[in-house]
Amino acid sequence: MEAYKKLETIFTKIYRFRHLISMAFWDIQVLMPRGGAEARGAALAELQLHVHELLTDPKMRDLLLEAEKNKEQLGTLQQANLREIRLEWERENLLPEEIIKKKSELTTRAQQIWRKSREENDFSQWLPMLKELVALFYETGVALAGNTGKHPYEALLQLYEPGMSLERIDEIFNEIKSWLPALIREVMEKRKTAGEEVLTPVGPFPLEAQKELSRYCMNVWKFDFDGGRQDCSLHPFCGGVKEDVRITTRYDESRFETGLMAAIHETGHAKYEQNGGPKEMITQLVARYRSLGVHEGQSLFAERMVARSKPFIEFLLPKLKELFGDQPAFTPENMVKIIQRVNPSFIRITSDELCYTMHIILRYEIERGLIEGKLRVEDVPAVWNEKMKSYLGIETLGNDREGCLQDIHWSIGDFGYFPTYSLGALVAAQLMASIRRDLGNDVVDDCIRKGELGAILEKQREKIWQHGSTYTTEELLTKATGEPLNPRFFREHLERRYRDNLG
Amino acid sequence: MEAYKKLETIFTKIYRFRHLISMAFWDIQVLMPRGGAEARGAALAELQLHVHELLTDPKMRDLLLEAEKNKEQLGTLQQANLREIRLEWERENLLPEEIIKKKSELTTRAQQIWRKSREENDFSQWLPMLKELVALFYETGVALAGNTGKHPYEALLQLYEPGMSLERIDEIFNEIKSWLPALIREVMEKRKTAGEEVLTPVGPFPLEAQKELSRYCMNVWKFDFDGGRQDCSLHPFCGGVKEDVRITTRYDESRFETGLMAAIHETGHAKYEQNGGPKEMITQLVARYRSLGVHEGQSLFAERMVARSKPFIEFLLPKLKELFGDQPAFTPENMVKIIQRVNPSFIRITSDELCYTMHIILRYEIERGLIEGKLRVEDVPAVWNEKMKSYLGIETLGNDREGCLQDIHWSIGDFGYFPTYSLGALVAAQLMASIRRDLGNDVVDDCIRKGELGAILEKQREKIWQHGSTYTTEELLTKATGEPLNPRFFREHLERRYRDNLG
Repeated sequence: MEAYKKLETIFTKIYRFRHLISMAFWDIQVLMPRGGAEARGAALAELQLHVHELLTDPKMRDLLLEAEKNKEQLGTLQQANLREIRLEWERENLLPEEIIKKKSELTTRAQQIWRKSREENDFSQWLPMLKELVALFYETGVALAGNTGKHPYEALLQLYEPGMSLERIDEIFNEIKSWLPALIREVMEKRKTAGEEVLTPVGPFPLEAQKELSRYCMNVWKFDFDGGRQDCSLHPFCGGVKEDVRITTRYDESRFETGLMAAIHETGHAKYEQNGGPKEMITQLVARYRSLGVHEGQSLFAERMVARSKPFIEFLLPKLKELFGDQPAFTPENMVKIIQRVNPSFIRITSDELCYTMHIILRYEIERGLIEGKLRVEDVPAVWNEKMKSYLGIETLGNDREGCLQDIHWSIGDFGYFPTYSLGALVAAQLMASIRRDLGNDVVDDCIRKGELGAILEKQREKIWQHGSTYTTEELLTKATGEPLNPRFFREHLERRYRDNLG
Repeated sequence: MEAYKKLETIFTKIYRFRHLISMAFWDIQVLMPRGGAEARGAALAELQLHVHELLTDPKMRDLLLEAEKNKEQLGTLQQANLREIRLEWERENLLPEEIIKKKSELTTRAQQIWRKSREENDFSQWLPMLKELVALFYETGVALAGNTGKHPYEALLQLYEPGMSLERIDEIFNEIKSWLPALIREVMEKRKTAGEEVLTPVGPFPLEAQKELSRYCMNVWKFDFDGGRQDCSLHPFCGGVKEDVRITTRYDESRFETGLMAAIHETGHAKYEQNGGPKEMITQLVARYRSLGVHEGQSLFAERMVARSKPFIEFLLPKLKELFGDQPAFTPENMVKIIQRVNPSFIRITSDELCYTMHIILRYEIERGLIEGKLRVEDVPAVWNEKMKSYLGIETLGNDREGCLQDIHWSIGDFGYFPTYSLGALVAAQLMASIRRDLGNDVVDDCIRKGELGAILEKQREKIWQHGSTYTTEELLTKATGEPLNPRFFREHLERRYRDNLG
């Protein structure tokens, strides 16, 4: 018990240091003037190094072994916390300092070259850099796998999605590939045949009105403004700390939907943070979000399961008219067409709900191929083009800016991260299906139509949020929804919305 | 050399930690939602404790002694840096942990009680708290004095104004007392006799226009917006870090002068930070501002020596008309009357330039008396009233809210801090006198009248800013102005502006 208590104290300290790190990161994205970058980077690196030193201090190992020896003295939460502590400790100790330093050095350089290569649509500049990155992250994966026999790519994936196996990912993604590209073609064909007409809302949509709309929706989700903020940044994100959750949005005065959906998406993340984990253990790892897939599951639940649904559009229309004037485009039927548009396109981040997953599968297959050495870095543009053709029916040949150069992820060292976006989509659909079973379809749709989300939010809290990292992802989903992750619900959701025009 | 280099490395680390601490503090004042306070406090305390541990690590003592033994191997800057390191190290090691903890606990409690006592105009609630504070800060002063034989109040004062003796302070303040109250009476009398009429500019003065005015003035001062920001907070301050200096302002839509003068005041501080110290040693103590008195000297230089002068009003008038419309009040003569008003009043922070110093002397005499045990805490209201009558001719009896309960300083543990405000006023006047000697009165006034401050700012940089803490305050002022601190220049400035109606 004493050893365990000491570990808690160390992790409370780390929690507090990470508070300052998160806030300094948030500030970089939202406020920091350009000239502050170098000093900020050095300050962050210094505290991160100190946290690393705490985690790799030899006495941690003794405390951990001692605590694990006396595990039966601990309660359920404490045992789960100890499991998370071991995971964090192992990760931190498996990576040699040279890899950490090399990562920091390489990704700083890589980001600059990536940006330039993308601007100039020039893969040849990016090629040597990507080779170096792949080599480093292969090495990182091998180091993280330790002597567990894990596949190096799996070790990378598990940084974001602990416990997820490649076998499982393949199973899920292959299942999705067996029907999603066909569904996309079918929906596109049907809409073309129907000669669908869409009225575009007429802007400009003033910044202040868009901000009010975001705030209005954040209140619908009961975002706690006493424990958080909303600001603007180039790329929307959810940051800060559990006690002070900070989401950002980016507004486009010519289109209000993107800013609106981004704000609701980030609010979904924020709700998980603001209500996450057992409160009495807030400084401990057990109170942390379960995984990035589960986190994305909450944001996509808010965005796709709720905000992109017909009932929500109905709820929102009066507010849209109030803020942007009564427009011919503001009918339920037309606005549903806008919010549920399907349009296979090059860019992942502006992709629609239906096509998005194919973007992710493409990236997963390519990055895994690279790490496994089965795909040569030189061949990335060609393979990208082939897969885009086969999955979405569009070509990127010679257009790498909108092809393999579009994402920031590899340049900042996020290999193994992409799949969590799609795991999130699955979690969101499966969670909504279980809430619909619990509350009844009519009640759920009615809640959404009235903008009274209380009952739905309470279900999310009960099923997911309150548990933090107490359970593994598989345990958590089974408890919450009756079964482990199952892509069936995702398919049913998409077919219902896009094929059957329901929901 | 090796020991010294190790010390530099440790202080670079501390500099970076303090970067994160400063930014987190800034965020509290400017952005943090209420609910974030507790976690933020804990996070800050954790990192501050870590810095304290670094400074009190026994190996620091060995490094310091070793480095001092080989001092002659070091250059001038390094020797100065070593002197500052010793000072910081001594301070940090002289205070027992119990005092540090007690200070943190007591001041948190004291602030709440002070706020309530002030609101309710009830000194009796504050009395026991102030007794505890005085006892603790007596103890702190004794600890900080160590075995140097320093007066405990002097030890407290030297936290903010290193090297300043009580003897010197008394000399200065007694000299000022010999003529300032009489000057105030004389000016008041003369203005009353002259039946002076002042036209008040007609508001409201919209927030956005005031912000533009501040930004306009910050550009006149060549504030580097690439290395800093301006925001709003309840109490204006200059925070952040040297590479990212953040000033704040508070605007009042019914009066633009307060926000304007506050913005310029904080810009004065910011300029010292943005240009402070030898750049190549930016992470070291030697690059830090010399003292709070010198810092306030820079803000008051901007505010009083420049912005409250007639030539500056002339420069500003076209901009005022552009932003707030052409008003009868916007004549040079009338605006000078507003910016240079004299009106003895209860509240220090809204006091005019002439009366301000008497507020400071009053506080100095009272806080010193308390720490020395020559003044009983019970007698503070009565003594306050007496001194206000004698210095400014107004009474605070029964009005402690606007008397001895008005300042936050004692409640947050700032004993010995007040005098630095007036030292700053002296520094500002003496610095301007020397710049006027160097450049000539006409050139200086002409620069200000045109809003082209380049030559003046360059003089400030050359005389004060670039030196950071290389020299002691006395050395610095002597190099900059030809003599140590001398209240003569302050008197000449006030007499010129308020008695002779010049400048």
